[in-house]
Amino acid sequence: MLDRINAGDQLPSASAKASLDRPFDVDTRMEPVGDGSFTGAFTGRWNSLGGAVNGGYVVACALQSLRQVLGHPDPLAVSTSFLRPAKPGPIEVSTDVAKTGRRTSTGTALLRQDGKELARTTATFADLSAVNPEARDTQPPAPVLPDPTDMSEPGAGREFPGATITERVEFRYPRPPGWLEGRPTGDATAEFWLRFRDRPSDTMSLPMLVDAAAPAALELGIAPAVTIALTTHVRARPAPGWVACRVTTRTVLGGYLEEDFDIWDADGTHVCQARQLALILG
Amino acid sequence: MLDRINAGDQLPSASAKASLDRPFDVDTRMEPVGDGSFTGAFTGRWNSLGGAVNGGYVVACALQSLRQVLGHPDPLAVSTSFLRPAKPGPIEVSTDVAKTGRRTSTGTALLRQDGKELARTTATFADLSAVNPEARDTQPPAPVLPDPTDMSEPGAGREFPGATITERVEFRYPRPPGWLEGRPTGDATAEFWLRFRDRPSDTMSLPMLVDAAAPAALELGIAPAVTIALTTHVRARPAPGWVACRVTTRTVLGGYLEEDFDIWDADGTHVCQARQLALILG
Repeated sequence: MLDRINAGDQLPSASAKASLDRPFDVDTRMEPVGDGSFTGAFTGRWNSLGGAVNGGYVVACALQSLRQVLGHPDPLAVSTSFLRPAKPGPIEVSTDVAKTGRRTSTGTALLRQDGKELARTTATFADLSAVNPEARDTQPPAPVLPDPTDMSEPGAGREFPGATITERVEFRYPRPPGWLEGRPTGDATAEFWLRFRDRPSDTMSLPMLVDAAAPAALELGIAPAVTIALTTHVRARPAPGWVACRVTTRTVLGGYLEEDFDIWDADGTHVCQARQLALILG
Repeated sequence: MLDRINAGDQLPSASAKASLDRPFDVDTRMEPVGDGSFTGAFTGRWNSLGGAVNGGYVVACALQSLRQVLGHPDPLAVSTSFLRPAKPGPIEVSTDVAKTGRRTSTGTALLRQDGKELARTTATFADLSAVNPEARDTQPPAPVLPDPTDMSEPGAGREFPGATITERVEFRYPRPPGWLEGRPTGDATAEFWLRFRDRPSDTMSLPMLVDAAAPAALELGIAPAVTIALTTHVRARPAPGWVACRVTTRTVLGGYLEEDFDIWDADGTHVCQARQLALILG
């Protein structure tokens, strides 16, 4: 027992050790079992409204697997196809390295649960440590939002049936969303702050966070939709603190909708762009 | 010889036969060789500026393979990772079906040339025949452009070294692009008409067309960039005729840029959304 505690103390720093104990880090841990395969488990701590395992959390587990077989630390371009609903419980992941290059490396992870494939993620990793956030002459301006400390959490104290992700991620909206008051505004764009309650965001968690907020289409009165595909580009390592988000749905057509999710860090750098296509239910 | 001509006459219609003879259809034809594998060839007729085989054409060949193993006719969500430059010559494609469902089916195609993987595409197909283009209350307005017959073709009569795709696809810009005059405008957004010279666009060719135009970043004075990943959502079957396009690059950071490409058909329906991430060279 003492040996194991000592081993823990040899981690790079106390804060790194603490970070590894936090739910996002614990719940996305993937254990190598040889041949580029991994085992892990979806916990029930990342459920979206309605109780489904959050799609972004599925992506995060795929990325934790791919990071162990690819030669670079940061996910740069990530695309996931969702095939079946995920539920809390064990998962198996197999990976396939497409190419390992000097600047980037690319691979695919297949995620299975109960022997059935539920998602596949292809990602290109790179090293974003040298990205200079000052060199951002070309980027869209961040949303203009009040200081998060001056804003209250929408829905605080309410029950969101089935949702547990709101216990890990917190939000600050400039005004309560219309859908939350039962009056969708008809404007499928929202801007808000977001952060983990217990850890900073980083390049491995941004592809989860782009799927963590309430769908923009709720303001159109559109009920649940199931994500079919989700693509995320991570452009820089985020500065510590809240991140500013803009989520928008532009086109609803043929029973499908897309949602764009953009993230700027606390310094105003446009660190992440994501787009998903979802099937509207009912 | 007579037999072969007669066989040709038995095709569904003269126009269908004619369509099959057109370069896009001939050059993306993929021959099944068993076990979900296919052979084909990149021709030199779809080269971008500089002489590289166009990435959208690579995607189109992947989709022609996947369509033969999946249960639905229209690509809905398509993501491709580009690993190595493609060159004219034979290709081999292997496919892997992830899931065949009632509404959608999903699979991955690996494209190899000279034994090396050069791209992998994961796509979800659906049947978009029932999409009602009138039911588009929620979509971004199409670009406001003059009638294409009132516009001239930019760069007509000029040499674009290496480019052959301009012999298959034609463009109408409201004004000559600044970069073409050697004076980049600094505004990385362009709106224009586009069409094949010899065939209508359809859901199988839109994922090629989103990569067919001049990069938006040319107006920022940014020289060549290599596509790392390209994701396209096809939302409806396009009406015949010109399609209106908007291409824009929002963020240039860390040596990478993204490009968004939106297409509206001649009736104003937002038929296609695409985004790519590219590595800036030099």
